[in-house]
Amino acid sequence: MTDIQALVEDINEIVRREADYGKVADYIPELAEVDWNQFGLSICLADGRIYSAGEAAIPFSIQSVSKVFMLALALGRQGDSLWARVGREPSGDAFDSIILLEHEKGHPRNPFINAGALVVTDAVLGNSAPGEALGELLRFIRTAADDDEIHINHSVAASEVETGYRNVAMANYIKSHGNLMNPVDKVTGTYFHQCAVDMTCNQLARAGLFLVNCPGRPALISEERTRRINALMMTCGHYDGSGDFAFRVGIPGKSGVGGGILVIAPKKASIAVWSPGLNEYGNSKLGTLAMELLAAKTGWSIFG
Amino acid sequence: MTDIQALVEDINEIVRREADYGKVADYIPELAEVDWNQFGLSICLADGRIYSAGEAAIPFSIQSVSKVFMLALALGRQGDSLWARVGREPSGDAFDSIILLEHEKGHPRNPFINAGALVVTDAVLGNSAPGEALGELLRFIRTAADDDEIHINHSVAASEVETGYRNVAMANYIKSHGNLMNPVDKVTGTYFHQCAVDMTCNQLARAGLFLVNCPGRPALISEERTRRINALMMTCGHYDGSGDFAFRVGIPGKSGVGGGILVIAPKKASIAVWSPGLNEYGNSKLGTLAMELLAAKTGWSIFG
Amino acid sequence: MTDIQALVEDINEIVRREADYGKVADYIPELAEVDWNQFGLSICLADGRIYSAGEAAIPFSIQSVSKVFMLALALGRQGDSLWARVGREPSGDAFDSIILLEHEKGHPRNPFINAGALVVTDAVLGNSAPGEALGELLRFIRTAADDDEIHINHSVAASEVETGYRNVAMANYIKSHGNLMNPVDKVTGTYFHQCAVDMTCNQLARAGLFLVNCPGRPALISEERTRRINALMMTCGHYDGSGDFAFRVGIPGKSGVGGGILVIAPKKASIAVWSPGLNEYGNSKLGTLAMELLAAKTGWSIFG
Amino acid sequence: MTDIQALVEDINEIVRREADYGKVADYIPELAEVDWNQFGLSICLADGRIYSAGEAAIPFSIQSVSKVFMLALALGRQGDSLWARVGREPSGDAFDSIILLEHEKGHPRNPFINAGALVVTDAVLGNSAPGEALGELLRFIRTAADDDEIHINHSVAASEVETGYRNVAMANYIKSHGNLMNPVDKVTGTYFHQCAVDMTCNQLARAGLFLVNCPGRPALISEERTRRINALMMTCGHYDGSGDFAFRVGIPGKSGVGGGILVIAPKKASIAVWSPGLNEYGNSKLGTLAMELLAAKTGWSIFG
Repeated sequence: MTDIQALVEDINEIVRREADYGKVADYIPELAEVDWNQFGLSICLADGRIYSAGEAAIPFSIQSVSKVFMLALALGRQGDSLWARVGREPSGDAFDSIILLEHEKGHPRNPFINAGALVVTDAVLGNSAPGEALGELLRFIRTAADDDEIHINHSVAASEVETGYRNVAMANYIKSHGNLMNPVDKVTGTYFHQCAVDMTCNQLARAGLFLVNCPGRPALISEERTRRINALMMTCGHYDGSGDFAFRVGIPGKSGVGGGILVIAPKKASIAVWSPGLNEYGNSKLGTLAMELLAAKTGWSIFG
Repeated sequence: MTDIQALVEDINEIVRREADYGKVADYIPELAEVDWNQFGLSICLADGRIYSAGEAAIPFSIQSVSKVFMLALALGRQGDSLWARVGREPSGDAFDSIILLEHEKGHPRNPFINAGALVVTDAVLGNSAPGEALGELLRFIRTAADDDEIHINHSVAASEVETGYRNVAMANYIKSHGNLMNPVDKVTGTYFHQCAVDMTCNQLARAGLFLVNCPGRPALISEERTRRINALMMTCGHYDGSGDFAFRVGIPGKSGVGGGILVIAPKKASIAVWSPGLNEYGNSKLGTLAMELLAAKTGWSIFG
Repeated sequence: MTDIQALVEDINEIVRREADYGKVADYIPELAEVDWNQFGLSICLADGRIYSAGEAAIPFSIQSVSKVFMLALALGRQGDSLWARVGREPSGDAFDSIILLEHEKGHPRNPFINAGALVVTDAVLGNSAPGEALGELLRFIRTAADDDEIHINHSVAASEVETGYRNVAMANYIKSHGNLMNPVDKVTGTYFHQCAVDMTCNQLARAGLFLVNCPGRPALISEERTRRINALMMTCGHYDGSGDFAFRVGIPGKSGVGGGILVIAPKKASIAVWSPGLNEYGNSKLGTLAMELLAAKTGWSIFG
Repeated sequence: MTDIQALVEDINEIVRREADYGKVADYIPELAEVDWNQFGLSICLADGRIYSAGEAAIPFSIQSVSKVFMLALALGRQGDSLWARVGREPSGDAFDSIILLEHEKGHPRNPFINAGALVVTDAVLGNSAPGEALGELLRFIRTAADDDEIHINHSVAASEVETGYRNVAMANYIKSHGNLMNPVDKVTGTYFHQCAVDMTCNQLARAGLFLVNCPGRPALISEERTRRINALMMTCGHYDGSGDFAFRVGIPGKSGVGGGILVIAPKKASIAVWSPGLNEYGNSKLGTLAMELLAAKTGWSIFG
């Protein structure tokens, strides 16, 4: 198992040689200020042992990675009736595209594009207050990570509130089609806060263990549900770069514009990688490269 | 292993209870005449042993399943330079949509929608005649299946020539953007014939073995390439129903409008299923159901 | 000129024979309650003489007809620099489509679809308060109509505030592209109130006189500007039914979902027609028919 | 009336001062070779007197201006039943866009985009041979222009056959929806030849007289039909630049990528202008400018 430690250190060394770290997301002011020159990687094996390299203990904004946890919560609350409100198909469009919403009358393509995530957040909210829903999310993540030191970064949330016009547009559009139960600003407010959870690679890798589907994993959701969430991450987890990630890496994952990616090697490991610079699809540039190296060296591709 | 035999027989029995077998494709006259009341299933394990039930020895038109073999041939000829001409992302649109072609200037989203398959066929053609390219395809399939009795059904091919306006439209559109090297009718003629290959479930299951990635498999392409083709089948193999197939079945596959589906359980088995009635995405209705049952009973989902 | 009186009475009689009055707009609760069984028509000649028939003295909600007055005000304030923020092309889409906004990055196609009208309202607002902008609009309309009894219907405005999610979505989307100067709710609030102006056919026909371009008209805007606004009404005034209106009627006009249409026969007359039932494009069904009859009988088509 | 002669000479002089003549269409080889440095203008008054300046006697390829004549022929053959096969709305898209065709299932938006023109050509063809249909077109144009020296340029037609993949794509797409009666290559072959008619400004201005709707005009079609064709030219005659042309010029017209524009001032004059360089919409740059000057100086805008 020191092999794994050597592996993460190797990858850390290799990716840092890249001339271009990608472009830090600039449409959320607080994120734009993050130092691009960072990279962290943690691998948490099915048995709970964890190996890490680089800035794996520095907290970052998980952003859209939160959609995985919220989906697990929503399915726990509503079961498969959730799928009457949101689809399961890759969108072929950017994460914040509003076009399909019109063609599909407020029924988002999948839960991992922003439009779909807003519907999922509405489902988690149900009749409860934003604080309760966010409390439930934090409890879920903390239990999964076995770590109580995971918090919402309120200045990131506030920063997003000011600039989130595109998401507010989508929420209003979905509302116009009757596919949000709660008031728009309640849903968007909750959504901006769920995206603003801060985690380190070590915390995120541990938290992902509930999807690894192995005897030692936290029994937070059923085995069948882990498979289905993993399938959705594979087909939809990287927006319009999902096909490329499947092709190059071959392990399901979910990325966020904060530069984090959570990757699940079923029955083997939960992996978290982080580097703030993004590629043309809005996914971490070094993070994607690191995962490609890791898949090649471990043979953890699920495709053979 | 008699377990597997019992399994295929069980599935055969269960799916035939369905009240609705789906709708046989009607836009190719020859296919419209096929008796809908048929179902065949074959599982070929990594070691070559084969188990089947139902009409597994009746030949059917493989149609778009041929895209998998042609992609393997094109990658063999051109290597990764093929990806400069065709993408690797799910399209989010129907198999014969022409819309993305305009937005993306004749560069199809992936090799498994019709537009992308036409580019792949053009790549396989290179400077050779249609007959040579089709001969190469048949040799590849026959070698993979270890069976020389696999042929092109010329009346299906001819039937398609008359009705293939949509494909001819796409080929001309791609040509207008300079992404076909050969004359349009040479590419579409070859394409219609490659789709018209007739195979039985038993033949197709055996032929798929080259993608299973295990010691006993035919060494037709590299391990890395099998993983990548499997990844593409997972994200793009069922058109705009790909996400649903990944979610419900969790094993990569490629479907055709003739009602056949080739499914690859990496390192475990190659599975062929056939039933002519299609669901709303144009994929075999009973075939999809059969694969869902098979995945549930074998635990072959690659997602955990 | 008693000919004109006979004409309006004839038209009133003919259109009322229609079996189907169309469908009253139901997405604004206050409008949904309007009695569908009404029709009014007023012709105000260039010299100011007015002829009317039917419910020409019943006030109705002018809704999108207000876009014509707001455009005149915005051009008065900003001149042609307004065209850097909004286009002048027919959209080919429904009045509330959000699709083009994404393709065109928050730059609406024309000032008569909702998205464009929101930008125009933002331009009229400038740094002033909603009350001031709405006051300016009322003064303009009252001066044009020479009638001080024209008011905003606050219960319609309030009704719209509750249901206007689609418009709020668009405003947020435009804001995300930096093409609104004012806060979103200030713009949408003003917009909902401008749409809620109540006018009768008599008042609206008189108010339209400023676009007729003749010696006697109110000198509210320049001749060149009247021609340009009339041109925009012709190509964009009836949403995705604009081409049909030009084809069948051949006189520029602007419709609203309240069932009103303002039509300008250059140098000849301003015509207002109203009937609450709408056709498939969201334009008054009887109103469109009445204008077709009027054009045929007067020879006022501008196309020959 | 020497005023008109002075006017055309003035305009000729002014537009030639432009630094940028626009870009000659390069996708038809024969057209790409035309000398950009040319400009011609002819005004034919309702009484038949003609005034011209610049290269008004040099033949050019009328290209899409032919759609006006073919529409007149098709309406003559089929009457209003033609409108069941093609719409009357501006498309909001480029002249060769294939996107709307998919959304609208092979029913083109209007007869002046390429897709619609192919349907019109199919209607003119009926059961006759291409040569007959093209003969009918030439007879119509020659009669309208009172000039037998108008011919098809076969090398332009041949040049188009080689490069017209986009049009062939559209025709096949429309055929796939059953909206072409004739074989695809018969329709596209006829279409390429109708576009290849060569005319001078003098000939084209005279030929347009049948749309001017005045006592002296050739009685080729009914008055109502002239109004309707003029309306279509206004809303759809300049592709996605139609709104701009209506706004700036205010007189209906139809442009072609050969650089010609036919403009109809109802009851007043038929105007032909030509300069090969195109603007961003594919309409003649100097031609558009000339028409803007002409409208301003004559007051022929139909909008007031």
